[in-house]
Amino acid sequence: MKEKLRKIIEENTNMKGKVFDYFIQILILISLITFSIETLPNNSEQTKIIIQNIELFCVIIFSIEYLLRVYVSKKPLSYIFSFYGIVDLLAIIPFYLRLSIDLRSLRAFRVFRIFRALKLVRYNKALHRFRLAGKIVKEEIVLFLLTTGILIFISSAGIYFFENKAQPETFSSIFHSLWWSIVTLTTVGYGDTYPITVGGKVFTFFVLIIGIGIVTVPAGLVATALSKAREMEENETIKTTANT
Amino acid sequence: MKEKLRKIIEENTNMKGKVFDYFIQILILISLITFSIETLPNNSEQTKIIIQNIELFCVIIFSIEYLLRVYVSKKPLSYIFSFYGIVDLLAIIPFYLRLSIDLRSLRAFRVFRIFRALKLVRYNKALHRFRLAGKIVKEEIVLFLLTTGILIFISSAGIYFFENKAQPETFSSIFHSLWWSIVTLTTVGYGDTYPITVGGKVFTFFVLIIGIGIVTVPAGLVATALSKAREMEENETIKTTANT
Amino acid sequence: MKEKLRKIIEENTNMKGKVFDYFIQILILISLITFSIETLPNNSEQTKIIIQNIELFCVIIFSIEYLLRVYVSKKPLSYIFSFYGIVDLLAIIPFYLRLSIDLRSLRAFRVFRIFRALKLVRYNKALHRFRLAGKIVKEEIVLFLLTTGILIFISSAGIYFFENKAQPETFSSIFHSLWWSIVTLTTVGYGDTYPITVGGKVFTFFVLIIGIGIVTVPAGLVATALSKAREMEENETIKTTANT
Amino acid sequence: MKEKLRKIIEENTNMKGKVFDYFIQILILISLITFSIETLPNNSEQTKIIIQNIELFCVIIFSIEYLLRVYVSKKPLSYIFSFYGIVDLLAIIPFYLRLSIDLRSLRAFRVFRIFRALKLVRYNKALHRFRLAGKIVKEEIVLFLLTTGILIFISSAGIYFFENKAQPETFSSIFHSLWWSIVTLTTVGYGDTYPITVGGKVFTFFVLIIGIGIVTVPAGLVATALSKAREMEENETIKTTANT
Repeated sequence: MKEKLRKIIEENTNMKGKVFDYFIQILILISLITFSIETLPNNSEQTKIIIQNIELFCVIIFSIEYLLRVYVSKKPLSYIFSFYGIVDLLAIIPFYLRLSIDLRSLRAFRVFRIFRALKLVRYNKALHRFRLAGKIVKEEIVLFLLTTGILIFISSAGIYFFENKAQPETFSSIFHSLWWSIVTLTTVGYGDTYPITVGGKVFTFFVLIIGIGIVTVPAGLVATALSKAREMEENETIKTTANT
Repeated sequence: MKEKLRKIIEENTNMKGKVFDYFIQILILISLITFSIETLPNNSEQTKIIIQNIELFCVIIFSIEYLLRVYVSKKPLSYIFSFYGIVDLLAIIPFYLRLSIDLRSLRAFRVFRIFRALKLVRYNKALHRFRLAGKIVKEEIVLFLLTTGILIFISSAGIYFFENKAQPETFSSIFHSLWWSIVTLTTVGYGDTYPITVGGKVFTFFVLIIGIGIVTVPAGLVATALSKAREMEENETIKTTANT
Repeated sequence: MKEKLRKIIEENTNMKGKVFDYFIQILILISLITFSIETLPNNSEQTKIIIQNIELFCVIIFSIEYLLRVYVSKKPLSYIFSFYGIVDLLAIIPFYLRLSIDLRSLRAFRVFRIFRALKLVRYNKALHRFRLAGKIVKEEIVLFLLTTGILIFISSAGIYFFENKAQPETFSSIFHSLWWSIVTLTTVGYGDTYPITVGGKVFTFFVLIIGIGIVTVPAGLVATALSKAREMEENETIKTTANT
Repeated sequence: MKEKLRKIIEENTNMKGKVFDYFIQILILISLITFSIETLPNNSEQTKIIIQNIELFCVIIFSIEYLLRVYVSKKPLSYIFSFYGIVDLLAIIPFYLRLSIDLRSLRAFRVFRIFRALKLVRYNKALHRFRLAGKIVKEEIVLFLLTTGILIFISSAGIYFFENKAQPETFSSIFHSLWWSIVTLTTVGYGDTYPITVGGKVFTFFVLIIGIGIVTVPAGLVATALSKAREMEENETIKTTANT
């Protein structure tokens, strides 16, 4: 019995497992849409009741799913403290907290329901290649994150010294200048903060020439690593086929 | 006779086929330019008449082309329901609907004429490599689209909770926040919506650090896949040459 | 004599040739800086005279250089009509036109002097690899430019139909909407034009999801092609070394 | 004794060396955070005193570290004039200058303390691959920087001629237009300067179509070069293992 349930819940190679997976995925989507509709400012009373009922239904199913996963798991504790175990719990816990804790602090906990979106990824099987690619470029990504961090700090400190006097409101400290750095170096450029002094503009000129390269390289690294990971997988398959 | 026509219309290896193709392509371009000029606010009566005549001429030719393609096709139905068959039909149908249906609903149908632009791609022979590249990175692109979707949702939900109180007009629901997410994560950054609270800015900081990589990776994937596809084509050619 | 001159002017493997090349390059830089200073709004009379003298000196040298290049060239006509021949001529011709033609039309011709910047590239020897890479990805780049063109047109037509009524000034025709398309698809996002209707925003959402990939792929293609070109060059060198 | 110290300070393979390295790194981070807090506009007197004490402590440790590095180095002069030697000195010198020079010029020197951030990179061992990648793409990067420079100049000159009359304040000279060029070509697009004339917009259209490719290619080049460098390292390791 437990063995049969495990096949349905943990695997998705058989028919019943696939049906279960798709059912949960569709429920997650419905739950996320309901969650979004709930934030709309002018919902009618009727809409609110429908939303509450859908929400109740989803939480019941997710709770059953969570308990079943703990039950069928060979190592229940390792599931509970795994990434997906925590996500599964975070997806249902705000509902129960809402029941026990005072209603006014409700809003703050509701935000955790967005983690349900992460449950969608669990069902994707193409992840293996990404983990492999992640391993390949791990060191480079760390170095680039470090460099990006230093770059953002130096940009913030630099622009603070150039613009602080001219725009004391916007660039009132290095922390305030961080906002300008991230918006500029990622090339978003909202236009709410930008240098107006000649010194600040020349500084931005050099920051951009150097910075754009540094910030956009990691994406290229991931892309080439993924293409490498694909090749490695193909070679594996060829070897396995050759051996049989 | 039918066979001869088919060689002219469907193939472009012979002289007549090439002439036919270039003629249709030039007509599409003329049709698109006319369509654009038609939207200009202050066209004189004379211009309007010239535009109508060119439009009439184009539609007649495109209609003949469509009927000929159905006629010469070995499997007419599979052409009609193919991608290009539907595009070819969508390119002419607004004109005929305009004649039969009340004139006031005309504007809404005219928009389908932009699909004529897609007819231009049909005549490009370099597409084969792109289809091959598409096949190679299909799974990764799907996973990235999924991840991008989740990222956009989590960004929207997060910024809604941070900014809703400070800017109730701009971030009035998760749906309204989606606009901010897409404009920020694609680094367009119009500057019509941006966080103003400290929490919202710190959240944006982390969204950008993680998000930029995710959103720009697919382009790199396509680029490396195309370079792979080219290599595969070259190897094919070498093998074929070696066999002969 | 002519042979000696040709070695100095056309080649830069010998000492005199290198000196000649660096001299011309520095003169181009000086000429460009002078040209930029000339546009400053509040130049003193003295500055203007100095600028005019430098300009005169540069033009004389560039004219001599041009005549010498025509003189020493084995095929003078093919030089005159080559890319660099035309650039060299465009760099000096505005000065002579200024002398002969009425002074008021002077401003329009001065702009051609910016082509002197292109003369700098002539002296770079790393160009060979780029030409090779260009040949490798030629077809893909053409297809991407075509696709980008179609994408820009469809975006412009689409946004026109969604936003025209709400913002008749900004999106007054498809031509006016082109400005929005290019600023959005290249992710510049100045913030002078952006959709305000729900339809326009949803349309922009999809345009960006699809568009960003298409517009940024060519850069990745060029990068991978350059890395391929480098490998091909290395293989060439290894083969040549092995043969000797 | 000196030999023992050198092992602790210069190497980080042994236990003591690692502890020393981590201690210095944490101190750099603390020093940078203190530096940032110092710029906050409304620090209380108490906070200022705490910051000063932390600052004093950090400078003393960094000074001892600097002197020790000079002392244990086999070639003290080559360390003093190396990149890290200069960074190490720049990180402490503002403090001593503040003591000797008049206090009002203090602000200008404090900026050099941001160089402490660069000390963090010293301790990263993944740099070797980046140096290798840098060597591989050196020529291409130089050519791209040159091309970018020319592109920025031509864009600035072009937009000056189109927009100068319409917006004399913003585009008052080629130098002023440089700001527009860099903000546009890196796709930041703050929205403080943008063309408003039809000519300027059409010019920007072409600048963007050509420019985006040129500006974003170097990041792709670095990414492919890094993947090449990794392969070279792996081959090295395989060869070394095979030989043993």
